Amino acid sequence: MTSYTVAKLLSEELTLQPIEIKGWVRTFRANRFIALNDGSTLKNIQCVVDFENTDENTLKRITTGAAVHIKGELVESQGKGQNVEITVSEIDILGDSDPETYPIQPKKHSFEFLRENAHLRTRTNTFSAVMRLRSALSFAIHKYFNDQGFYYMHAPIITGSDAEGAGEMFRVTNLDAKNPPLTDDGQVNYKEDFFGKETNLTVSGQLEAETYAMSLGKVYTFGPTFRAENSNTSRHLAEFWMIEPEVAFMDLAGNMDLAEDFMKAVLSYVLEHNMEDLEFLEKRLQEEEKTKPQADRSPMPLIEKLKFVVDNNFKRVSYTEAIDILRHSKPNKKKKFNYLINEWGADLQSEHERYLVEKHFKCPVILFDYPADIKAFYMRLNDDGKTVRAMDILFPGIGEIVGGAQREERLDVLKEKMSALGIDEKELWWYLDLRKYGTAVHSGFGLGFERLVMFATGMTNIRDVIPFPRTPQNAEF
Amino acid sequence: MTSYTVAKLLSEELTLQPIEIKGWVRTFRANRFIALNDGSTLKNIQCVVDFENTDENTLKRITTGAAVHIKGELVESQGKGQNVEITVSEIDILGDSDPETYPIQPKKHSFEFLRENAHLRTRTNTFSAVMRLRSALSFAIHKYFNDQGFYYMHAPIITGSDAEGAGEMFRVTNLDAKNPPLTDDGQVNYKEDFFGKETNLTVSGQLEAETYAMSLGKVYTFGPTFRAENSNTSRHLAEFWMIEPEVAFMDLAGNMDLAEDFMKAVLSYVLEHNMEDLEFLEKRLQEEEKTKPQADRSPMPLIEKLKFVVDNNFKRVSYTEAIDILRHSKPNKKKKFNYLINEWGADLQSEHERYLVEKHFKCPVILFDYPADIKAFYMRLNDDGKTVRAMDILFPGIGEIVGGAQREERLDVLKEKMSALGIDEKELWWYLDLRKYGTAVHSGFGLGFERLVMFATGMTNIRDVIPFPRTPQNAEF
Repeated sequence: MTSYTVAKLLSEELTLQPIEIKGWVRTFRANRFIALNDGSTLKNIQCVVDFENTDENTLKRITTGAAVHIKGELVESQGKGQNVEITVSEIDILGDSDPETYPIQPKKHSFEFLRENAHLRTRTNTFSAVMRLRSALSFAIHKYFNDQGFYYMHAPIITGSDAEGAGEMFRVTNLDAKNPPLTDDGQVNYKEDFFGKETNLTVSGQLEAETYAMSLGKVYTFGPTFRAENSNTSRHLAEFWMIEPEVAFMDLAGNMDLAEDFMKAVLSYVLEHNMEDLEFLEKRLQEEEKTKPQADRSPMPLIEKLKFVVDNNFKRVSYTEAIDILRHSKPNKKKKFNYLINEWGADLQSEHERYLVEKHFKCPVILFDYPADIKAFYMRLNDDGKTVRAMDILFPGIGEIVGGAQREERLDVLKEKMSALGIDEKELWWYLDLRKYGTAVHSGFGLGFERLVMFATGMTNIRDVIPFPRTPQNAEF
Repeated sequence: MTSYTVAKLLSEELTLQPIEIKGWVRTFRANRFIALNDGSTLKNIQCVVDFENTDENTLKRITTGAAVHIKGELVESQGKGQNVEITVSEIDILGDSDPETYPIQPKKHSFEFLRENAHLRTRTNTFSAVMRLRSALSFAIHKYFNDQGFYYMHAPIITGSDAEGAGEMFRVTNLDAKNPPLTDDGQVNYKEDFFGKETNLTVSGQLEAETYAMSLGKVYTFGPTFRAENSNTSRHLAEFWMIEPEVAFMDLAGNMDLAEDFMKAVLSYVLEHNMEDLEFLEKRLQEEEKTKPQADRSPMPLIEKLKFVVDNNFKRVSYTEAIDILRHSKPNKKKKFNYLINEWGADLQSEHERYLVEKHFKCPVILFDYPADIKAFYMRLNDDGKTVRAMDILFPGIGEIVGGAQREERLDVLKEKMSALGIDEKELWWYLDLRKYGTAVHSGFGLGFERLVMFATGMTNIRDVIPFPRTPQNAEF
């Protein structure tokens, strides 16, 4: 007798065989029909129990959430909704699940309730589908870069440099929390800390990735990054995963080509491999949106939206053009934007990004050549002296999903920029070395992985696309 | 004119074509021969400069480390050591590299010096080979699990639970370092910290991975883990990457099968895809070992060692048998071990593990059924009441490389174990829930990624197999 997964049983021509299978009971109805799931696929396999010849005590223990070991025969199904089912000859209860206390009952639970039970929420269809997609997207990312000759590099998580200024950082320490050692002038003496200096959790692996790009050519990071920002929104996490490719000898145009090709490849992968989960999530989203006013609903069903991104060229628009469009837009004139666009130099908000993508261009948009003042110090200054070779990719429903740039490769310009911002050269001596020895044009971008998972699954709260979300006041599990 | 990588130029039949290429000068000799590298492969491509028709100032700037853009023709090589070379028609210096100050000269540098220049060390053959192998091993791991139907899960990095007790932890905090808020009874008030409680960097994602295995069936983590231990050795890092698969319905025998198959698959992958780098590293190791006494040299050349692991069954030996062997071994009788083995229950040291693998069995060994007292609380107690279903895989030259176990799936036994160790049930309520609702046999293991990279590259200091090592008193870059 061979042991199978549900995915295997449902995908192959295997009828009329003695088989065995282990899994968890999703439902048990009419004392006869078990819907059995083992996580290998969204679908359950129906197991038909001969209740007249099954011990009554055993029947009572077949409850939602119980782990069971079933032996039987795979046969063509007489019922609707499945091709095959299992005629159970033997059932063994491996682990009970008390229906009085088991939190995951076969009914609709709020996502908030499920967040409080994040250790059990992948026992629901929605979260198992989301997490299978998260896994598939991860693999698609590694596969894409590997196929394209990139090397995966692990950027450090604990960092002694806080020069990037991408956001508030978490301190990593080993000092006595209540009575830290002090220096003679009464400051905390980090020389006595584990690393001999103040250290934090990284906000980005980009600067380190640049060191590898300038020797290995094409590299990418895929690792956790952190922000200690008190943002209790559906779009922010204190701990999230980021993908940051970095390529030597590539300019901003090449960077846009790479980012577009990458996003399309990764979404194509799940369209090819995860259609069952996508179809389920599409239906779920449609159900959820029925309760919303028309204007707040997604303009396209989930799968159509993914195909739309895969099939269409991303529109490339300079920041200057975008400002022009926004200034003359209806919502700006009618003062419907929360932040009105009055002049060149304004930082774009999510509402503006979504207007450009969803109303004006009706396709993914890449904005480029942003004002230097609203972008990071390491971005390549254009000859106009006021814009930098930055680019952001804007997606429907989500706004900015990718942010990238050609990096400033000129030592003198980079030093000037750092000095103007008060960044100590000693802090980034190694980063400056890349411009001293064999400098060259190079570029890269960052993709917040959870933003991608939200886009691909239609989930609207970022806490629902990562296994155990970390947010202000919450580090449970 | 098409732009190529060195790897592509050397791997295909492309002679007699006008091409262009960008890369870094490794050496320039006789004012004529540039060895050009772009990181895509270990090998350089020879570019022949027509020095009589090249501007003298340009010739002077062709120095080790300089970035150049070359146009020319790919032709069959007249010299030895390469099939093709480039006849340069145009060379453009993109970024100079001052030979007076550039740290990476074409000579032998000590690994210690290169660690201090970790941002530049992948510009050497050794470190580019190591990091390409690190990348290939990462991909092989993801590919293996994906092919086998596992889901990749991201375990949390910041954790509020410190129950596992795998080692000293780093505190993650946002509180004022000098004057933290205090409670009424004078303790640090972590309620005011970012997460509303004391939080640390994770030492393992296993417990969280178990929650996912018990719903999705087969999962694995691959992420950073941390130890705040003051171990300044060539085998320890404060920050390292770990792979932790976890599988529902799998017992210890299945766990051993999985681990053996996995290790073989991953090493086979690099034997298939990275032979050039492996050959280089094998030679490097042989050179290095020439200076060592015979007894300290590797018993096998690098590639033979990898093939040996791939081709041989791992010998499965119970802890009890192993203790017997060790007690009666020569080094124990002659008191050559630093820690003599006197009785059952002793914890094995690296010297014992290596004796079993290298001298006694002469093959990789899996030890299983360890004394409960020397293993973690969550391991499945055997019926003898004194051993647990733990297993460690021991490799030549390195000792323990994998540690795993069948997990204790029985609620009452687990609670007893926790209580005996003083672990608060409230801390791990969610972990206990897995035993309350649909519990089943399940198992998994952990592999320290850097140990694997050391094994596969022959590098002997763990700081040389991770881009930017974190160790006591060191968090540079």
